[in-house]
Amino acid sequence: MDQGNSGLRVEGFVAALGRALASGDAAAAAGLFGAECYWRDLAALTWNIHTAEGRDAIVAMLSATLATARPRGFALESSGATADGGEEGWFTFETATGRGRGHVKLVEGVGFSLLTALQELKGFEEKQGAARPEGVEWGAQRGRVTWQERRAREIAELGHSVQPYVLIVGGGQGGIALAARLRRLEVPAIVIDKLPRPGDAWRSRYKSLCLHDAVWYDHLPYLPFPAHWPVYTPKDQIGDWLEMYTKIMELNFWGATECVGARYDDAKGEWEVQVLRDGVPHTLRPTHLVLATGMSGVPNMPAIAGMESFAGTLCHSSAHREGSAWRGKHCVVVGANNSAHDIAVDLWEHEAASVTMIQRSSTMVARAETLRANGDRGPYSEAAAQRGLSTDQADLMVASVPYAVQPRMQKPVAAQLAHDDADYYARLRKAGFQLDFGEDGSGLGQKYIRRGSGYYIDVGGSELVADGRIALRAAVAVSAFGANTVRLSSGEELPADLVVFATGYGSMNGWAAKLISQDVADKVGKCWGVGSNTTYDPGPWEGELRNMWKPTRQDGLWFHGGNLAQARHYSRYLALQLKARMEGVATPVYALPEVRHRG
Amino acid sequence: MDQGNSGLRVEGFVAALGRALASGDAAAAAGLFGAECYWRDLAALTWNIHTAEGRDAIVAMLSATLATARPRGFALESSGATADGGEEGWFTFETATGRGRGHVKLVEGVGFSLLTALQELKGFEEKQGAARPEGVEWGAQRGRVTWQERRAREIAELGHSVQPYVLIVGGGQGGIALAARLRRLEVPAIVIDKLPRPGDAWRSRYKSLCLHDAVWYDHLPYLPFPAHWPVYTPKDQIGDWLEMYTKIMELNFWGATECVGARYDDAKGEWEVQVLRDGVPHTLRPTHLVLATGMSGVPNMPAIAGMESFAGTLCHSSAHREGSAWRGKHCVVVGANNSAHDIAVDLWEHEAASVTMIQRSSTMVARAETLRANGDRGPYSEAAAQRGLSTDQADLMVASVPYAVQPRMQKPVAAQLAHDDADYYARLRKAGFQLDFGEDGSGLGQKYIRRGSGYYIDVGGSELVADGRIALRAAVAVSAFGANTVRLSSGEELPADLVVFATGYGSMNGWAAKLISQDVADKVGKCWGVGSNTTYDPGPWEGELRNMWKPTRQDGLWFHGGNLAQARHYSRYLALQLKARMEGVATPVYALPEVRHRG
Repeated sequence: MDQGNSGLRVEGFVAALGRALASGDAAAAAGLFGAECYWRDLAALTWNIHTAEGRDAIVAMLSATLATARPRGFALESSGATADGGEEGWFTFETATGRGRGHVKLVEGVGFSLLTALQELKGFEEKQGAARPEGVEWGAQRGRVTWQERRAREIAELGHSVQPYVLIVGGGQGGIALAARLRRLEVPAIVIDKLPRPGDAWRSRYKSLCLHDAVWYDHLPYLPFPAHWPVYTPKDQIGDWLEMYTKIMELNFWGATECVGARYDDAKGEWEVQVLRDGVPHTLRPTHLVLATGMSGVPNMPAIAGMESFAGTLCHSSAHREGSAWRGKHCVVVGANNSAHDIAVDLWEHEAASVTMIQRSSTMVARAETLRANGDRGPYSEAAAQRGLSTDQADLMVASVPYAVQPRMQKPVAAQLAHDDADYYARLRKAGFQLDFGEDGSGLGQKYIRRGSGYYIDVGGSELVADGRIALRAAVAVSAFGANTVRLSSGEELPADLVVFATGYGSMNGWAAKLISQDVADKVGKCWGVGSNTTYDPGPWEGELRNMWKPTRQDGLWFHGGNLAQARHYSRYLALQLKARMEGVATPVYALPEVRHRG
Repeated sequence: MDQGNSGLRVEGFVAALGRALASGDAAAAAGLFGAECYWRDLAALTWNIHTAEGRDAIVAMLSATLATARPRGFALESSGATADGGEEGWFTFETATGRGRGHVKLVEGVGFSLLTALQELKGFEEKQGAARPEGVEWGAQRGRVTWQERRAREIAELGHSVQPYVLIVGGGQGGIALAARLRRLEVPAIVIDKLPRPGDAWRSRYKSLCLHDAVWYDHLPYLPFPAHWPVYTPKDQIGDWLEMYTKIMELNFWGATECVGARYDDAKGEWEVQVLRDGVPHTLRPTHLVLATGMSGVPNMPAIAGMESFAGTLCHSSAHREGSAWRGKHCVVVGANNSAHDIAVDLWEHEAASVTMIQRSSTMVARAETLRANGDRGPYSEAAAQRGLSTDQADLMVASVPYAVQPRMQKPVAAQLAHDDADYYARLRKAGFQLDFGEDGSGLGQKYIRRGSGYYIDVGGSELVADGRIALRAAVAVSAFGANTVRLSSGEELPADLVVFATGYGSMNGWAAKLISQDVADKVGKCWGVGSNTTYDPGPWEGELRNMWKPTRQDGLWFHGGNLAQARHYSRYLALQLKARMEGVATPVYALPEVRHRG
């Protein structure tokens, strides 16, 4: 670090960064950072979602991208102190092809982390605010085509005489949020879902289900929930919202449409996708295919001796509807994460004769009330909204923290949780429940990032486990089935009319295997996870979620998913990447990762 | 005016007002105002919508209301200079039963106008923001009732085993906005409309129709339009929005339901309302009945000699759908206001053989682009929204100007319009079009307030009139029909396959006559108009719109209507008046007006 820069404050940093980049001097730019440093880029310089870690990586990234990206016009918007004694600032900038916003954090006066996030493409800005359409067409004109007629024509043509540029498979919040972004960017897109109506994926789940995240975290793009919307939206209500949203945003949603196969034609540079729409075969030829089939991928269903002769009902948690059919029956739920708890509670509420939870390995549990209280101090909260913090800004704040830095920030939070709710955790342990707070103590958020599972946000189930109303068998597995029993690895045999495997999901590229081919699934590799070298998230370190919202090793194939907040925020970058390609904007991709995990 | 108060600034005024009111000193309060002065109260002190004009009227109003309303806690929010050299301030206050916001304008240091507007009832605040419902129900519980089940039960019961507290007849934007307010206030309400779906009243109009007001003026309560919504919403798009809104706000909307009769039972204090729901008779027994059937009332259809033997098609503008059936036909449109022009343009666009407009009396015409440019400088605009001015605040700003003051403020605007578009007006006059700018030159806004008609917001029709593509006959009336002709009072005879009477509507109390009885219609008197003593708005001066959103001379009968902005803003006061009555909050009504016009 150049001594002359050691006293740089945020304003100076941003100005110096601008000068270094303007002169194409990657080394000078990297020299503004400390020994530990990160530059996270969301499609602004790299046309990728990439974090350069350390000065050498920053030099490499800038050397490869500066000549084409030409970042410039850095202008500080605001700056201030951070809670940990550093300084931070927000800035705007532009590139050869777009406009972006960014964040810098200084520690001891030098660059620690930098975020550069593409916000819009020059010449292809969304028509909104002062640039919104007129609606009315001034003047008398013969052959007038109304909004209604134009929309009806689009519906009649798209997917038939006109091919969509993008086909999104999966019409949950992810597919719908992306389709909304693409609509506003005027990219012709169709979303297909095998269920009839938008929101049906939520409606069809067990009846007590509510969103596990609070409303401030859950807004979709463009149309925020109103001020009276409940904190944790009930499943049918979010279903109705998604249905309304799809209509109002004028999305081309094909319900009751199943994707049965897809093949990429390298010569034509387009997909041939076979779908069944209301059972009728139909071929679509999109240029890009987005799998938004749920970041959880294909259900994991183990093969266990005796399954075929089991006389009761066996299903994966995703297929379990609700408990009323199981009154007076013996029920076994395999697994101890969110779905397992919610289903066990639902069965208990419907007065099953017995409900036994089989915990195979340890689980992180956190009381929803405690998480809520923590959240109430964060950027997604009523307090933050009242302070004027927009959801877009909150998204960028969260995105500004590099994945590599998150565990050390989150360990104290998890430790505080363990301390504050110590009695509660003691009661759970006493009942035999196997608890953890993440392999490195980094808690729930990191479990989500690393494996998308391994936790339960407790809305009531843990009390039933603690006092035995839900029976618990821990550190065992199901080893065999009898006609009306389940045998555990401990040797115990349980009566069973219903066995629900809440055993999670494979990686999303399982969908690529299923819908396209195993070759393509292998070519793109595992999705999700950051290479933390923890359970279900093998190393080496990647620094970003694998394959999510960014180019993959298969041309024209993209993955989109995650919770409502991720669906909202990252759909922006995925939509901009697709729009740029449609418009012929050069999108040289920097650092397409090596594929290391085929699973 | 007490000399010692002549230098009062806004802060001092609000403090002095608070002191005078706290000590119940009506004269001292009135003494803070100048010789010309106004106190407009929206349900805060008077449980009415009332403007006290002059110091004596203020003394009378305060003397009658202070003891029960007990206004107090006046706290200045902001203050500043007005464009005309006065000073103004915004303040909050409370009463015995509610909380309000207010506005004061000082001229030459003394009170000129004061607004007091009830915003919420103590103990019955809307559950929103930090007080929003949780959604999820914490803890395991047998017999859990989900959101979906609760809503299904309400739909099954309301109007059957459970009677609505309020029945709203008419499911346009007015009925829907009011139903949304009542829903948030937990007042059981049903909206009925004879058309099947929310929004159908818009969908069924002529195809080129778009809202005549810009989007910033048109937001419904709670769920504003998104930033990409068009400036002038096409009719089918606003139809979809209303349908979505009804669903998301969980309104009890009975489509395909016609009100065929209503009778007030004085003994029971409730209505007996006969409806046909999908053609099946059904009785509802609401405590309050709101007619939201369109502030335009019942269509005016003249009786003219020979009508019965006319071989072509005759209809009122509200029944005219669209022009495609009239290609090559001779069409006559009677009237020269908004609907007449829109329909004439639609017929011309569909290549009618001839389109003749019969202008009976003079019309105010304003170019929509010019109005738009004026609006862009006002409180309902993108610029105002960007400055952070909320729609609620804009509504209060507009409401703070007493009706008596509006004409003098609007005359220069109308004069400027005449000057700026002088060439345009000259061309219209040259074509024989009879123009006015209001009887006193106060323009379009006052025509709307006084008679709800008499103008055309030109989106293209005037050019067709000016150059003769729409033929014009001015200062004449239709005197008789032949089998295929229309005879004018000038003696001229026109060939006619279609005659559309765009001849406006009667007062809203025509609906009371139609649905309840002529006695009740006479008892409540004319709706709308302020007593300006101009055409269709006879004196004496009322100072407020007759019968709108406030108690009438018929117990339990209310009128709601107007454009989207009025539906939004005044639904607040109507809903609070109804909620207070439901909860048994004392609502002594001050200054229920004399009924002078039975029409």
